[in-house]
Amino acid sequence: MHAPNPRHAPNTNADIISLDRQHVFHSWSQQGQLNPMAIAGAEGCRMWDFEGRQYLDFSSQLVNTNIGHQNPKVIAAIKAQAETLVTVAPAHANQARGEAAKRILARAPAGFSKVFFTNAGADANENAIRMARSFTGRDKILSAYRSYHGNTGAAIVATGDPRRVPNEFARGHAHFFNPYLYRSDFWASHEEEECQRALQHLRRVIECEGPEAIAAILLETIPGTAGILIPPQGYLDGVRALADEFGILLIFDEVMAGFGRTGSWFAFDLFNVKPDLITFAKGVNSGYVPAGGVIVSEAISHYFDDHMFYGGLTYSGHPLAMAAIVATLDTMEAHNIVDNAATIGNGVLATGLQHISQKHAIVGETRGVGVFHALELVEDRQTRTPLAADKMNQLKASLISKGLLPFIAANRIHVVPPCIVTEAEVQEGLSLIDQALGEIA
Amino acid sequence: MHAPNPRHAPNTNADIISLDRQHVFHSWSQQGQLNPMAIAGAEGCRMWDFEGRQYLDFSSQLVNTNIGHQNPKVIAAIKAQAETLVTVAPAHANQARGEAAKRILARAPAGFSKVFFTNAGADANENAIRMARSFTGRDKILSAYRSYHGNTGAAIVATGDPRRVPNEFARGHAHFFNPYLYRSDFWASHEEEECQRALQHLRRVIECEGPEAIAAILLETIPGTAGILIPPQGYLDGVRALADEFGILLIFDEVMAGFGRTGSWFAFDLFNVKPDLITFAKGVNSGYVPAGGVIVSEAISHYFDDHMFYGGLTYSGHPLAMAAIVATLDTMEAHNIVDNAATIGNGVLATGLQHISQKHAIVGETRGVGVFHALELVEDRQTRTPLAADKMNQLKASLISKGLLPFIAANRIHVVPPCIVTEAEVQEGLSLIDQALGEIA
Ligand SMILES: Cc1ncc(COP(=O)(O)O)c(C=O)c1O
Ligand SMILES: Cc1ncc(COP(=O)(O)O)c(C=O)c1O
Repeated sequence: MHAPNPRHAPNTNADIISLDRQHVFHSWSQQGQLNPMAIAGAEGCRMWDFEGRQYLDFSSQLVNTNIGHQNPKVIAAIKAQAETLVTVAPAHANQARGEAAKRILARAPAGFSKVFFTNAGADANENAIRMARSFTGRDKILSAYRSYHGNTGAAIVATGDPRRVPNEFARGHAHFFNPYLYRSDFWASHEEEECQRALQHLRRVIECEGPEAIAAILLETIPGTAGILIPPQGYLDGVRALADEFGILLIFDEVMAGFGRTGSWFAFDLFNVKPDLITFAKGVNSGYVPAGGVIVSEAISHYFDDHMFYGGLTYSGHPLAMAAIVATLDTMEAHNIVDNAATIGNGVLATGLQHISQKHAIVGETRGVGVFHALELVEDRQTRTPLAADKMNQLKASLISKGLLPFIAANRIHVVPPCIVTEAEVQEGLSLIDQALGEIA
Repeated sequence: MHAPNPRHAPNTNADIISLDRQHVFHSWSQQGQLNPMAIAGAEGCRMWDFEGRQYLDFSSQLVNTNIGHQNPKVIAAIKAQAETLVTVAPAHANQARGEAAKRILARAPAGFSKVFFTNAGADANENAIRMARSFTGRDKILSAYRSYHGNTGAAIVATGDPRRVPNEFARGHAHFFNPYLYRSDFWASHEEEECQRALQHLRRVIECEGPEAIAAILLETIPGTAGILIPPQGYLDGVRALADEFGILLIFDEVMAGFGRTGSWFAFDLFNVKPDLITFAKGVNSGYVPAGGVIVSEAISHYFDDHMFYGGLTYSGHPLAMAAIVATLDTMEAHNIVDNAATIGNGVLATGLQHISQKHAIVGETRGVGVFHALELVEDRQTRTPLAADKMNQLKASLISKGLLPFIAANRIHVVPPCIVTEAEVQEGLSLIDQALGEIA
C-alpha cells in the first residue's frame, strides 16, 4: 500500500513531535528527557514551525548552514543532479565529484592535490588519521583536550571533551592542553605567555609520548564546540614547527571552522600556517546533503600512488552531495558570502557583542571571528565560575520564546548565524540576547 | 565568479576520467593503478557512459540500488523535500524523519521501538556497538572473520576480512570462524556438521574470551562481501541461544542483506531469528541519499530513557535522506519489489546460475537467495584453488566489454542486480556471464 504523501497531511507541532518521540532515537541524550521543537520550513536565516511561529537561526543548526537555509541555487543543483544521476559507486568517475574536488582544491593552499570524500566530519577525521598512520608508519595521534572530532571509533577518542570518556575503545591517542587564556591551564596571565607555555607543554607531551611514535597532531584550527577558542598569534606556527622538528604530520580539522565560518575559506588562512591534511564537512555544502572529506597534500597523495589506501565507504563522493558542494562553493563565491561573514562578523556582530559584554556582568568573556563568536557566561566575573546549568536552560528557553534559535554549549552562547546574515538580522538577534541576559541576571 | 554549469559542458568519457584522476582520491586502492569508468546516467537496471555505451548493472553499485536507478517516485520525493526543508539539526522534530522511522519499524519484528539514524553502514555499526557496550556494561565485541562492517574505528576492527589488519587501532574485538561449508574451517563434510561445529567453536570462543566480558555478537545475517555465505539452517538460532545463555546481545548487520536483497525485508526473516539490534543502510533508500541506522529493541530503547546515550552526529536523520527512505519503502511495497526479488532471484536467476555452474568447470560453487548470489570460481574443482587474480581481472574486463557491470570480489562474481530486475534482464546478464566464463576457461 502506498501511504499518502505525509507532506499533504495537515500537521500541528504536536503531531510532529509525537511522531518523533514515538519512533526516533536521538543523539547525546537521555531519550526520556527530550523536548524537541518542530521545524516545518526555513529560508535564509529564518525557520518556522507548523503553527507559523518564526525563529531567527543563530545556530546555523549544528553550525553547518553557512549559506543559509534553502538557498535556491543549491536546491536547484540538488534537483538537477537527482534527475541526472542521483547515486553511483565511488569506483566510477563521476562529473559532479570531479568538479567538487576541483573547486575544493582551488580554495586550498598550494601543495594540496587530491580530495578523499566521506559522509561527514567524523569519518573525515577517521580517514585523515588512517592516512597519517600509513604515511608515517607511526601509531599515535595527539589531540587537544578542548576539542570535538566526531562520534566514530578513532574520532571520539581523538576528541578531548568528556564525551570521549565513555567511548575509550581506540588505542594510540594522547591528549594535550590547548591555549585558552580565560581558563588557562598554564597559569598564564596574557596571550603571549599562554601561547609560549602551551607550546612548551606540547613539546613536553611530544617528548614524553615519544616523537618517533607520533603519526600526527590533530587540531581544530579554532576549537568550536569547546568554546570558539581563537588560538593566540604564534601558536599554530609553533605547532607546525614542532611537527616539522619531529617528523609529525599536522591535521587541521576544519569541519566547523572551514568554508566561510571565520570570514575566510579556511580558518588557517587567518594564521598563515599550512597543515598536511585538512578535514572538512558542514560548510562545504552547508549540510544540504551529508558530505565531508580530507584534502590531501601532494606528498601524501603521491605516497598513496603506489601504496594501498586501506579505507573506503559506499557513499564516498556521492553525486547528490557533490552537486551541492559545486553549487554551494560557486554561489558563495558569486555572492561574496565569505566576505559578508567577515564584514558583518568582525563589524556589527563583534561590536554588538562587546556592548552586551560590557552591559551584563554575567558575561565573562566574548571572543570570536567572522560569524563564529561565543559569549561565555559566569556566575561571577572574579571567580569566573561557569553559569549554572539551570540558568543556561532558562536562558535557552527564554531565547526560543523570544524567537531566537540559539546554539548553547555548556556555559556559553555560541553566536553562529549563517554567513549570509544581514546587519539588520544581527541587530535583531543581539537585541533578543541582550533582553534575555537582562532577565536572567 | 560563477563557473558555468558543468552539466551543460560537452563531455567525453576521457574528460570525466581525467577530471577524476586529477582531483579525486579513491577508496581501497593504490591511486596510481586506477582506471575508472565514466558513468553519465542510469535508469532501472541500466547505466550508460558519455559516449552512449550501455551497461546492464549486475552490481547494484555497491549492492545498494535495490530499487534500481533513478526511480521516479524516489527522485520526486527528494526534489519535494529539497524544496520544503533540505536540512535541519537532529535535535529538532522533523516530519520526514518521524515518517521514515515509523516505516522502518513497521517492517521490523515485534519488540523493536526506535530508530537511531546515521549516515551509512559503518557508523550504524559504531553506534550499535556503543549501545551494546553501554547497555551491558561489558567491553568485548565478537564478530566473524568472514565479514565486512565498515571503515571507521570500531567497525573496521569488527570486520574480519584482511582490510582489518592495517587498521587495528580499536580494542575489545575478538573474531570467530563462521560457517562456510565450501571452505570449511571445521573439517566438516556436510551442512549439518558445519553448523554444529561452527556453534561449538563459537561456544569455545565465548568461554575463552570470558562470557561476562562480551557485550555483543555482531554478525552479518548473510555475510555479503565475504562471499554471500548463506548460514546453514539452525546456525542463527544456535547463535541466538548462545547469546541468551551468556547474557550477550545479538546485533545483525543487515547493511547489505537488508531491505529486499534476499527477497524479504530483512535477511533474518528467512531464518525466524530475532536480534537485539539491527543495523541498516544501502537498500533502505537505495543509497539515493547517504543514510544508515540502528533499529533498537524495546528493552534497549527503554534503558536509554534514563541513561545518556554517548553518540551522535550532525546529519542524524537528515531530511533529504529520510524523504528518500519514505518514498523507497512505500514504492517497494506498492510495486511488490521485494516479492520480485524473491520470484526472479529464487527462480530464473538461481536456475540459470545452476546451469552455468554445471556447464563451466571453472565454477566451484554457486549459492545465494533472492538477488544475492555468488559464483565462486576455481582453478580446479578438486583442489578448490581460487581462480587467480589475473584471470579474475580478465573476466571483469571481458564482462564490461560485453556490456555487463559486474561485482567482483576475490575469486567470485557476486550476481547482485537491483531487486526490480526482470526475467529478460536476468537472461541477458546470465548469457553474458556464460560467454565470458567460456572465454576464460
Ligand atoms: C570540529 C569538528 N570535527 C568533527 C565533527 C564531526 O562531524 P560530524 O558530526 O559530521 O561527524 C564536528 C561536529 O560538530 C566538529 O565540530
Ligand atoms: C555488511 C556491511 N556492513 C557495513 C558496511 C559499511 O557500509 P558503509 O560503506 O555505508 O559505511 C557494508 C558496506 O559494504 C556492508 O556490506
